[in-house]
Amino acid sequence: MQFASLDDIRASCRDLPEGDARAAAVAARRQQVLTKPPGSLGRLEELAIWLARWQGRGLPRLDHVAIAVFAANHGIAARGVSAYPAEVTAQMVANFAGGGAAINQIAKTVGAELRVVPIELDRPTLDFTVRCAMNEQEFLDAIEIGYHTVPERCDLLAVGEMGIANTTTAAMLCAALVGGGASRWAGRGTGVDDEGLARKRATIETALEFHRGILGDPLAVAASLGGRDLAAIAGAVLAARQRRVPVLLDGFVATAAVLPLVRLHRSILDHCRAGHVSAEAGHPALLSEIQLDPLLDLGMRLGEASGAGVAILLLRAALACHNGMTTFTEAGISDRDD
Amino acid sequence: MQFASLDDIRASCRDLPEGDARAAAVAARRQQVLTKPPGSLGRLEELAIWLARWQGRGLPRLDHVAIAVFAANHGIAARGVSAYPAEVTAQMVANFAGGGAAINQIAKTVGAELRVVPIELDRPTLDFTVRCAMNEQEFLDAIEIGYHTVPERCDLLAVGEMGIANTTTAAMLCAALVGGGASRWAGRGTGVDDEGLARKRATIETALEFHRGILGDPLAVAASLGGRDLAAIAGAVLAARQRRVPVLLDGFVATAAVLPLVRLHRSILDHCRAGHVSAEAGHPALLSEIQLDPLLDLGMRLGEASGAGVAILLLRAALACHNGMTTFTEAGISDRDD
Repeated sequence: MQFASLDDIRASCRDLPEGDARAAAVAARRQQVLTKPPGSLGRLEELAIWLARWQGRGLPRLDHVAIAVFAANHGIAARGVSAYPAEVTAQMVANFAGGGAAINQIAKTVGAELRVVPIELDRPTLDFTVRCAMNEQEFLDAIEIGYHTVPERCDLLAVGEMGIANTTTAAMLCAALVGGGASRWAGRGTGVDDEGLARKRATIETALEFHRGILGDPLAVAASLGGRDLAAIAGAVLAARQRRVPVLLDGFVATAAVLPLVRLHRSILDHCRAGHVSAEAGHPALLSEIQLDPLLDLGMRLGEASGAGVAILLLRAALACHNGMTTFTEAGISDRDD
Repeated sequence: MQFASLDDIRASCRDLPEGDARAAAVAARRQQVLTKPPGSLGRLEELAIWLARWQGRGLPRLDHVAIAVFAANHGIAARGVSAYPAEVTAQMVANFAGGGAAINQIAKTVGAELRVVPIELDRPTLDFTVRCAMNEQEFLDAIEIGYHTVPERCDLLAVGEMGIANTTTAAMLCAALVGGGASRWAGRGTGVDDEGLARKRATIETALEFHRGILGDPLAVAASLGGRDLAAIAGAVLAARQRRVPVLLDGFVATAAVLPLVRLHRSILDHCRAGHVSAEAGHPALLSEIQLDPLLDLGMRLGEASGAGVAILLLRAALACHNGMTTFTEAGISDRDD
């Protein structure tokens, strides 16, 4: 048992390892002498150096890449906030197991191990407009599940989710921890119509009022207004940080899931990059709020770690260039005139 | 011999095959029934349908992917418009042959055949501030070389270039065919300093004045103010269109290379996508001018087809989802409530 109380989580967020500055410096020096104008590979250079920093080696590896998808059900689905019925969560988990979903194809394409973790699908969180979504123990259990999902050997982790109605939960966390009201954060999710969107906003506004006493406590918000899938993502990201595993976040829900952590420790996401910015309404503002610059902008809004999964490809390209290119000296190429 | 005169090029630009609307419709219908909310894979869906349209099959393939890099030297390099000396073009071609450049690593990563085509490196184009860069025959020869570079079996082609000073040539074509003057199009290329940038702008302004009589003729501009690398790219893109091979364009130079074709036929690039938007100053405006929406925005500015090469990965992800996912019916998943 890693976390016996919310205070244990708070404590581990205060005591975080930093990246390896020496390995990052070695990688940065290498980028300066490879056969290209300095800086000309743009973010691919920054990504290689970031991998070096968190893996603690000047020539990073991507031999063991994992994609974790956490699935859970949300009580507020009963309020008609999604375009799909709640049973789709379990059906999609079966689809993941059968290899038929988008993330299965993406995991194969990018050479990653896919870990799908359904969390008590038959026990949805409670409707947070009238009570707490989870009690403290349920929340800690979900964090713990995520925490222990990071594989022992892991060069890179991508995290995502599946849970009908969970863009409402994600918007809820944003409204609670950033502010700006429901209309700033509620989007169409899987494609809800105007009436569903109105219900989604009303659900969030009602819950903001009901829980107004706890909005200053990030972990209380994550438990009372969150979901098991989101809590597990936070647990996985925290475990990755403690073990210096670099992480790619997926879309709006996965990013909202780590927002409570950011409120506990401003630089807790230094080991994370945003795999993409999704087409879900609140995601650009959320990324801007936590100062993450997304790698891809492809109008994706599927979840399942699909955007982060595709972004793994960029890291493979960055790594191949960083590790495989020759230097100006090795290649006997004239350096700049200046 | 494909092109005996500029008129032969003009004629083939008038008589272009369209994509396969039926195959595109089949692919679009498939995207609607795969196990995801419709549209939720964003541009990955559009890319799969685009591949289907040009390959003429509802389930496209990427078994034979080629990257073509055309290298040439530019007379205006002698005017001090680049941060590197002209001999670097040949040195980098040797680096490509030795497998040490960025594009070698990227080609390996994306599973593409790399074709590097040096074109008369010991015979730079002439200085276009005082004469024509190429005569008609030289221009036709370069077009022809590009035209015949497209492999016989080719599911997708990425095109790029290597040529010291060729961002000046690219900016030249933009200034001549779009307008707005040198300052709109001249950027820092491989990293030229302020004085070099000033020389670059002056070079372009001088040439605009010297060649003012031909600016209304896109092919005369491509010959008199262009380069062999750029002409070869245009030839390859034209050959790909005639054989319905989908193409990914690389950065500023590769995009400027096809601008003369666009001036001959507005929809000549329907089989092309912009692999990325580069950090080179003129590229965003050029893409906007020819209405191409880039797939990646990673601050890359290397050339060598590196941006287009990385974008091949997105097509692999798009294709894997399109061909590999199950449908709602196959998976027994509840469809939307509406």
